[in-house]
Amino acid sequence: TARNLFLLPGDGIGPEAMGEVRKIIAYMNEAMNAGFVTDEGLVGGCAYDAHGAAISEADMQKALAADAVLFGAVGGPKWDSVPYEVRPEAGLLRLRKDLQLFANLRPAICYPALAAASSLKPELVEGLDILIIRELTGGVYFGEPKELIDLGNGQKRGIDTQVYDTYEIERIAGVAFEMARTRQNRVCSMEKRNVMKSGVLWNQVVTETHKAKYSDVQLEHMLADAGGMQLVRQPKQFDVIVTDNLFGDMLSDVAAMLTGSLGMLPSASLGAPDGKTGKRKALYEPVHGSAPDIAGKGIANPIAMIASFAMCLRYSFNLVKEADDLEKAIANVLDKGVRTGDIMADGARQVGTVEMGDAILAEFKTL
Amino acid sequence: TARNLFLLPGDGIGPEAMGEVRKIIAYMNEAMNAGFVTDEGLVGGCAYDAHGAAISEADMQKALAADAVLFGAVGGPKWDSVPYEVRPEAGLLRLRKDLQLFANLRPAICYPALAAASSLKPELVEGLDILIIRELTGGVYFGEPKELIDLGNGQKRGIDTQVYDTYEIERIAGVAFEMARTRQNRVCSMEKRNVMKSGVLWNQVVTETHKAKYSDVQLEHMLADAGGMQLVRQPKQFDVIVTDNLFGDMLSDVAAMLTGSLGMLPSASLGAPDGKTGKRKALYEPVHGSAPDIAGKGIANPIAMIASFAMCLRYSFNLVKEADDLEKAIANVLDKGVRTGDIMADGARQVGTVEMGDAILAEFKTL
Ligand SMILES: CC(C)[C@H](C(=O)O)[C@@H](O)C(=O)O
Ligand SMILES: CC(C)[C@H](C(=O)O)[C@@H](O)C(=O)O
Repeated sequence: TARNLFLLPGDGIGPEAMGEVRKIIAYMNEAMNAGFVTDEGLVGGCAYDAHGAAISEADMQKALAADAVLFGAVGGPKWDSVPYEVRPEAGLLRLRKDLQLFANLRPAICYPALAAASSLKPELVEGLDILIIRELTGGVYFGEPKELIDLGNGQKRGIDTQVYDTYEIERIAGVAFEMARTRQNRVCSMEKRNVMKSGVLWNQVVTETHKAKYSDVQLEHMLADAGGMQLVRQPKQFDVIVTDNLFGDMLSDVAAMLTGSLGMLPSASLGAPDGKTGKRKALYEPVHGSAPDIAGKGIANPIAMIASFAMCLRYSFNLVKEADDLEKAIANVLDKGVRTGDIMADGARQVGTVEMGDAILAEFKTL
Repeated sequence: TARNLFLLPGDGIGPEAMGEVRKIIAYMNEAMNAGFVTDEGLVGGCAYDAHGAAISEADMQKALAADAVLFGAVGGPKWDSVPYEVRPEAGLLRLRKDLQLFANLRPAICYPALAAASSLKPELVEGLDILIIRELTGGVYFGEPKELIDLGNGQKRGIDTQVYDTYEIERIAGVAFEMARTRQNRVCSMEKRNVMKSGVLWNQVVTETHKAKYSDVQLEHMLADAGGMQLVRQPKQFDVIVTDNLFGDMLSDVAAMLTGSLGMLPSASLGAPDGKTGKRKALYEPVHGSAPDIAGKGIANPIAMIASFAMCLRYSFNLVKEADDLEKAIANVLDKGVRTGDIMADGARQVGTVEMGDAILAEFKTL
């Protein structure tokens, strides 16, 4: 049975990073008979240049049909002043929305070999392993009205709307509790219920979902601003964090930076299991951006993209052993002191994108 | 000429902390003929207990009439399930809104004596001095509709609205640029223009305000999520940060935590200068909360409250020398190794709230 992957390398360092995943796919097809079939499209600035849209309808169809989408990165100064509707990010937001990828899983782990690279004291981040579950298809990202109105007299008004319905909170809370059961069994839910009505509802629904179906999991509530503080103060207190789209955007970036491994962190965006087949739509992407300043130089770190593919193996194809091995290959290569420039350290060996990919593949083959 | 202060100690450790400010006020009246006249009211849970509202109309009138409001802290488990409209925070939000305190100044400074208390590596925070300018009367905190609707079928909908008009962004940008000129002359504006229309407007108006009136100041724009990352990665890159109400809430808490001096950070919330008198309405409050767990034990750290009073001397009464001296008194006492429990360190002398207040006052008298 074919496993259909749709590749959207995007802009900046996206294509270079994706190249290293392609090698792993090819190897898995050859040596493990994995049966991956890949197709490729354009998203972001390059799609705008080609089609005048941040993603074409044809590519949207392919994304919808695929078993999983691998996404690189989008954006760059070249497209800073294109119209709002076709800005590079619009392609990513449309993919999330149309594929109904409501559950964004963002692990913030600290690779032992990189603890020293964190701006936090090493003892606070060594062994850090947080999973942030961010709601991804609701909230202020998609609520209507969302508009910029000319009021006359030189005055404009910008409006965005944060909306959450019970079912949206229920399903993301469910994902958080399920994931917690495979980990340390603890969930911390974050919102601003003291200021936002959507926060009041968030708090209620998470509490009720917990009571009804997941009372074996330990649940805590925290205001999102206090949550940001606690992430900086004592990150290891957390296991799973569940929060809304905008708070998730902020908090997962802070958490990623804590690990010292920003260039290495993957993410998965999942839809609901299909009623018949049980399959989830899914998109996998690095947490980092398109890094236009180093694009095309062959020096980008491909680890986040490769680790995103490991998440794909795990969540889209249930290839758990292969996912574990690929993650282990990354850790082993880091332990051996092989580093791209962004994570260079005294005594390590500095390599480029391709060499890093080769090293990980070579390690993967031995496992 | 009388200087009218309205004191709202609030809940939890608020009254204890305020007690130490009262001593400084009394001393300044006696020894410096400062002419402070104080009155006092209730806000938060204690106001709810007394009046069934988070602040009474009579106290609102007094706050409106005063030259400055000193605010302690609100909230605690006792009031966790009071109705939304009269929750403790509603008192603070009403004060901000009715006094039109649109400019929230949150310095994030690292007291040298406390650099080691930060979770960041000391070299990243030593000498840190950021000023966060948070818009405080607009955005998602106050936009309408803000409601929780019952949709039937067990479904509810929580709605909050983020609204910004040109004039609101213009005036807060103006404050940021003015403040920058008294510091390192650099402003970083943060929003999510890639997702929010209010962010697009924010970015435009800050850019135009800069061009029209403040082109001598260095201006940078950053996406708010990247801003959170950069705060953790390299906080000293910032001088003044200007951002909206909700991002300001999150980012200022993260910045506060970085300093290792959370229990010590003050804030000022300012209105526009009155057309005739030039006076601004103003409220001063610690960044920390009501800390119900340690309330009434005499161990709370009063420094944030005292430092808030120093900001009051500076911004409401132009008592610059006195403000400088009070801030210096705090730093000196810390240098001498006098510490409350929250900032205790090896070899320091642990004291309670009253002793810390006494030590700072004694030091202040010598300056
Ligand atoms: C690129 C941008 C639209 C996106 C977001 O805000 O969600 C990014 O910051 C992310 O976190 O994936
Ligand atoms: C108490 C709460 C309403 C408040 C806010 O969200 O503004 C607080 O977190 C703050 O930062 O002053």
